[in-house]
Amino acid sequence: MGEKCQKSVSKNVCDLKAMVNAQNRRIDELIRYIKDGCSAVNPADLNWTICNLNPYIECLNPDILYHLTLDTKTTDFPKVFGDVRFVCLGGTGDRMNKFANFIIGEIGLTLSMAVQLIDISAGGHRYALYKAGPVLCASHGIGGPSISILLHELIKLVYHAKCQDPVFFRLGTSGGIGLEPGTVVITTQALDSQLRPAYEVVVHTKPQLWPTTLNQTLAKELSSLSDPCEDGYDTVLGKTLSANDFYVEQSRLDGAFCMYTPQKKMCFLQQISKMGVANMEMESTAFAAILHQAGIRAAVVCVTIVNRNDGDQIDTPPDVLKQFDLRPQILVARYMRKVLFKCDEDIVEGCPCDPVPECN
Amino acid sequence: MGEKCQKSVSKNVCDLKAMVNAQNRRIDELIRYIKDGCSAVNPADLNWTICNLNPYIECLNPDILYHLTLDTKTTDFPKVFGDVRFVCLGGTGDRMNKFANFIIGEIGLTLSMAVQLIDISAGGHRYALYKAGPVLCASHGIGGPSISILLHELIKLVYHAKCQDPVFFRLGTSGGIGLEPGTVVITTQALDSQLRPAYEVVVHTKPQLWPTTLNQTLAKELSSLSDPCEDGYDTVLGKTLSANDFYVEQSRLDGAFCMYTPQKKMCFLQQISKMGVANMEMESTAFAAILHQAGIRAAVVCVTIVNRNDGDQIDTPPDVLKQFDLRPQILVARYMRKVLFKCDEDIVEGCPCDPVPECN
Repeated sequence: MGEKCQKSVSKNVCDLKAMVNAQNRRIDELIRYIKDGCSAVNPADLNWTICNLNPYIECLNPDILYHLTLDTKTTDFPKVFGDVRFVCLGGTGDRMNKFANFIIGEIGLTLSMAVQLIDISAGGHRYALYKAGPVLCASHGIGGPSISILLHELIKLVYHAKCQDPVFFRLGTSGGIGLEPGTVVITTQALDSQLRPAYEVVVHTKPQLWPTTLNQTLAKELSSLSDPCEDGYDTVLGKTLSANDFYVEQSRLDGAFCMYTPQKKMCFLQQISKMGVANMEMESTAFAAILHQAGIRAAVVCVTIVNRNDGDQIDTPPDVLKQFDLRPQILVARYMRKVLFKCDEDIVEGCPCDPVPECN
Repeated sequence: MGEKCQKSVSKNVCDLKAMVNAQNRRIDELIRYIKDGCSAVNPADLNWTICNLNPYIECLNPDILYHLTLDTKTTDFPKVFGDVRFVCLGGTGDRMNKFANFIIGEIGLTLSMAVQLIDISAGGHRYALYKAGPVLCASHGIGGPSISILLHELIKLVYHAKCQDPVFFRLGTSGGIGLEPGTVVITTQALDSQLRPAYEVVVHTKPQLWPTTLNQTLAKELSSLSDPCEDGYDTVLGKTLSANDFYVEQSRLDGAFCMYTPQKKMCFLQQISKMGVANMEMESTAFAAILHQAGIRAAVVCVTIVNRNDGDQIDTPPDVLKQFDLRPQILVARYMRKVLFKCDEDIVEGCPCDPVPECN
């Protein structure tokens, strides 16, 4: 048996042991539940509420989530979405379809060969929405305004469905600053183009700055699940600049307009790099601010597809880009497995089948 | 023969006469061209250039229009896109597919029964792009950041293709202020959420305000092509408020958050209505500003799908919404026919088959 194969078998055996252990713990929980009845359920869990929720939602009968083509009259939200624990967003419907089908296997579920996942919101032609067991997967389009609509409607969805303490992830692509393309960046702080840790929302003509605070524990937890030696690529923590434009606001030289020199561009990249900015994309401020407003834990995990210090145009071959796309997904899958199987780090570290990794 | 049928036959005969007249004029032009050679081409037409174009584009070999999955190496832009005279944008790929197939017939072209239009940019999973003869049709997603990427790449496309003086249209849906749902609004001025006729672009951390000037002649020309009595709905000129959010920035009461009362909302709607704002949507400032920057003629034509004075939620039945969707398309089709067939208003007005319309 080759070394690679042996490693793979060891890993599978280890995964299986972790799953069986997790199942045992769930059976224990179930027995406790049957014995003690509802009173045994941790009341803290059921007290989780969405912060700053619109008080007028209660007046809506039905509430129409227009862009998701759902409403509270024709859909029984608690029944259909009540088990959702993770909400994952990504740019395109195609990517989220692939992710939904990927994550099913990763969290130990199987889909009958007679069915396939469907885009629940296909009728709206705006956002794609897939449900893979406890994981809701949605496409958010490009930019803050696009993702903001989706977040408003998804927050209302988890509220109507009475989901308990769901965690939101954005999995995306980005331009890296001084990072090898393919590096995964977990955002510690989302900055706007003026380098403010804020997302501007204009209420009745007056701009408000909403803080783009992300859950640092969650970011570190995700970071701890990366394994550069095994993975073959780096996963770093860093600040993310979220621009309202792909070209000018990201200081690219290849847009329709360019009012600066290549030298000015490089100075800008150096300036933001010194501030700790690891990458640039277009949704993290809106994502972080809206979910922080709602008191929902959230993380942004983006792979870099270009090193902006080396150039602007994305000429990475499509098959390499496809591989890059998977990297944030793999990391988030590890986190979900850890949460769902209650397989904490100590157990993972103590797994006898795991060879001690050595960096090359 | 019923009155309705007779009217329809009269209209078809008139359309045919206009087309034959237009063809005669094109044949005249052709004969002149053969006689006089290239010198007969109006040199003013070929002197049209894009304003403020990025000087570094010339250094790009190839130039990759990443989100449209096109590049100047593998695509001969002048050959494929050189005949484009109109570029039409709309929110979704589905709408633009339908529009592309609709406009073919409207401008007197036919598609062989053996072929169908394909989405040229399908591989990118971001924007849909269809070419219907001289009409390029693209979907822009939701919001300024999303449409800005598309515009950067389309401006580069028409530049590389050497298109002559193309006209850009945005055809969309919107929330009307005090207008019957189904009313078509031609934008005279695009305002941001702070009611500024500007689009903010942050260059190297410093905000710039780009004017959102739209071509007034074009707006009036479009308006003159509407016919409320015949159409059965109104087409009005008005200002458009372009928000970065569907819920809070548009003062809706049905978002995940709502930090104002229904009274404050109504005051806001009254305030903007007094300023001449006819509708609200999410892309017109970016659209107007970017095309104004490039010196390209542009118009925004949106149908209203809700009267915001009456409510926020969009509960118009899907089949009615489909009919509404067609209205901006019908108006823009009239403009294209007028330009392509050089069928000016005098000729149309003088058409003997047209009964003098009477308002009911």
